[in-house]
Amino acid sequence: MKQALIKDLYRNTDSFIEQKVQLTGWIRTIRDSKTFGFIELNDGSFFKGVQIVFDEQLENFKDIAKLPISSSIMVEGEFIYTPQAKQPFEIKATNIVVEGTSNVDYPLQKKKHSFEYLRTIAHLRPRTNTFSAVFRVRSLASYAIHKFFQDKGYVYVHSPIITGSDTEGAGEMFRVTTLDLDNPPKSDEGKTDITKDFFNKETNLTVSGQLSAESFALAFRNVYTFGPTFRAENSNTARHAAEFWMIEPELAFAELPDTMDLAEEMVKYVIGYVLEQAPEEMNFFNSFIEKGLLDRLNNAYTANFGRVTYTEAIKLLVESGETFAYPVEWGVDLQTEHERYLCEHVFKRPVFVTDYPKEIKAFYMRLNEDNKTVAAMDLLVPGIGELIGGSQREEREEILAGKIKDLGMNEEDYWWYLELRKYGGTKHSGYGIGFERLIMYLTGMSNIRDVIPFPRTPGNAEF
Amino acid sequence: MKQALIKDLYRNTDSFIEQKVQLTGWIRTIRDSKTFGFIELNDGSFFKGVQIVFDEQLENFKDIAKLPISSSIMVEGEFIYTPQAKQPFEIKATNIVVEGTSNVDYPLQKKKHSFEYLRTIAHLRPRTNTFSAVFRVRSLASYAIHKFFQDKGYVYVHSPIITGSDTEGAGEMFRVTTLDLDNPPKSDEGKTDITKDFFNKETNLTVSGQLSAESFALAFRNVYTFGPTFRAENSNTARHAAEFWMIEPELAFAELPDTMDLAEEMVKYVIGYVLEQAPEEMNFFNSFIEKGLLDRLNNAYTANFGRVTYTEAIKLLVESGETFAYPVEWGVDLQTEHERYLCEHVFKRPVFVTDYPKEIKAFYMRLNEDNKTVAAMDLLVPGIGELIGGSQREEREEILAGKIKDLGMNEEDYWWYLELRKYGGTKHSGYGIGFERLIMYLTGMSNIRDVIPFPRTPGNAEF
Repeated sequence: MKQALIKDLYRNTDSFIEQKVQLTGWIRTIRDSKTFGFIELNDGSFFKGVQIVFDEQLENFKDIAKLPISSSIMVEGEFIYTPQAKQPFEIKATNIVVEGTSNVDYPLQKKKHSFEYLRTIAHLRPRTNTFSAVFRVRSLASYAIHKFFQDKGYVYVHSPIITGSDTEGAGEMFRVTTLDLDNPPKSDEGKTDITKDFFNKETNLTVSGQLSAESFALAFRNVYTFGPTFRAENSNTARHAAEFWMIEPELAFAELPDTMDLAEEMVKYVIGYVLEQAPEEMNFFNSFIEKGLLDRLNNAYTANFGRVTYTEAIKLLVESGETFAYPVEWGVDLQTEHERYLCEHVFKRPVFVTDYPKEIKAFYMRLNEDNKTVAAMDLLVPGIGELIGGSQREEREEILAGKIKDLGMNEEDYWWYLELRKYGGTKHSGYGIGFERLIMYLTGMSNIRDVIPFPRTPGNAEF
Repeated sequence: MKQALIKDLYRNTDSFIEQKVQLTGWIRTIRDSKTFGFIELNDGSFFKGVQIVFDEQLENFKDIAKLPISSSIMVEGEFIYTPQAKQPFEIKATNIVVEGTSNVDYPLQKKKHSFEYLRTIAHLRPRTNTFSAVFRVRSLASYAIHKFFQDKGYVYVHSPIITGSDTEGAGEMFRVTTLDLDNPPKSDEGKTDITKDFFNKETNLTVSGQLSAESFALAFRNVYTFGPTFRAENSNTARHAAEFWMIEPELAFAELPDTMDLAEEMVKYVIGYVLEQAPEEMNFFNSFIEKGLLDRLNNAYTANFGRVTYTEAIKLLVESGETFAYPVEWGVDLQTEHERYLCEHVFKRPVFVTDYPKEIKAFYMRLNEDNKTVAAMDLLVPGIGELIGGSQREEREEILAGKIKDLGMNEEDYWWYLELRKYGGTKHSGYGIGFERLIMYLTGMSNIRDVIPFPRTPGNAEF
């Protein structure tokens, strides 16, 4: 008896012809007439299931026929090759053993459920078609990212999650503490005595691993992070979560255009990888989640991404004659409506916008010669807007120190970051990509809560 | 002019013979006589550097000769093949341009520094031989883990970091909050009003992703997590950090022996991968960090790991006649001294100890028929002790619910975990491996602070 996974039945069909196989899995659907029945069995290894035919020859025929869906079973039977039929094969059961029955109140009955409802049963939703596809693609895309960078010799850095500093100088952060909130130790001035906290100072959850990545790039040249990051923003939108994963490559001896070349290559690589590894899932998204998804991805895969400066982009938006909710003029930050207009209507493909006004970008971005803009880039993609943000980093110690001072940031937090410029600093550049946004881009899913296994948003940390 | 990485010079030496190359990197050492000089250049791409020979033909010869170490430079020159010499090649510079000079107070001068001191300059230590080797191996081992599981079709699950529950039912956890610690909102009873917190309830940093992984294993069959976990234990040892990464595979339709087969295969795979991908680094560890490291790893790679029950192990320890600091009898938890004695002296190879007394193991482990032990396993390895801990999970709803109740755990937190047993539950098993402990095992480094880029321990969250 050959133990098999359903994935193998589909991928290596030939090797199973006329074989007896043993499968284990869960009943997705079951129907029976008086003398025989059909089970669609899914074993988790593959998007699709396999049809099991069973009949009265089984001594437990009646018990099997009554099983609620989602029961787990072991099936032994003959692999029946049916190349002419809609399903290329089925299993004729000779033995079925019940592992675990399911209750009849199992919430995932055949009827279609709203994504909102499925979020309330996040422990069960990976058993649905949509979420099995989403989370398998999420896994494959994670691996594609690692493979892309490792094949190029990049060093993966686990940047710290608990941090004493605030990378962006502006993020809303989660406090991490072991103090008793009901009865915290007090200093002489009556304030909470943070020197009594676990780390003897105030600590928060990281908003970015970039500064750590810079430190490692100045040793290993090419590095990347891939880890969770956090924002304590009280915004209940379809695009924001309090906890999300981010990838941040950082390259020494590299300027802004190098980051764009890398980002373009990376996005194409990940698209190619999931299309190749998960064709069933991607076709499902194209049919049931976003019509035209495959066209959009194939277009990105084959196009040369556009490149335009912020100043040119503003001009294009102003001259478009389009009415935007947020008016456009030089100096404003681009809103999602502007970003999507640029890539969906003007360029009709992904486009990098570069050289933003320094006032609307982060302190560490390299000041351009014009003294007005910084060497920053955002990658805008159809359907999403901003997918990636990056920059060349300010490597000139005096300019960087001046900026930290001017912005009223806590200089002491950045002693080591400034030292990176003091001891053999060099041009370096990098970018960050929100991993969930990438998954939304790849799958067409429109709510970030539906691409995270157990999403964390304001008021919601269930499971 | 061929832009090159030093890694390529070593790995594809032939293709550079008689070529002109351009390199960028940092000066590791520099020495000069009146008319010529030598630079050891490291560009971060490879463990070793390359020797640059420069002389008075360079118009900036005198400036170059005075450069402090760690300055970053661009070098153009001829690749000189010297197969008879100690170094198989060198670069005869025709042009050197300074990118960033280093200050003369650069802390990593040639003299040897203690690991303790280097922790205080964690932003610079990856530039030393030891830490460049450690963190490159850490990156490669991370990737080996992903590759191992992905090649088997396992789904990578990003389990949540912020959590409302406590997996182990006993961990010391970090609180995550957005409340103002100096002035928290109060409830009518004068306690901190946690309904006003970001998630409207108490949340903490996760100690394990296992429960989430179980939920996904009952959909995808074979899954794994790989993410940061946290313990707020105030223990200052060489083996404990407040923040560390963990890998937790979980397998549906699998029993305890399946986890041992998988764990043994995984450990061997990672050993093989780093030995193949980082021979220079591994030789360095063998010479300078732990003599005999390579023998130890090769032994593990080729051995069949031992398997012994806890009950037999206790007998072996008692009968050994060895005096232990912690006395041994049936029922006690094994200490590191016992673990190391078993694998280093009794088995002389990695060994799984199985079927521990239920009282010393976690609530979710499957009760054996003897009603005294649980289907748990620990993998003990020479030099470390416990490397992996795993178990078959209790799939019987009544037994699990009873255990949660008996232990006084908060039953409401586990409604969804119990539901996994109600709707087609099945045998399932998994294990956890602390990633840092694996890196210590692979490198011979003896302090966990020296295998984490920016370690977090009591009183220490610098950088």
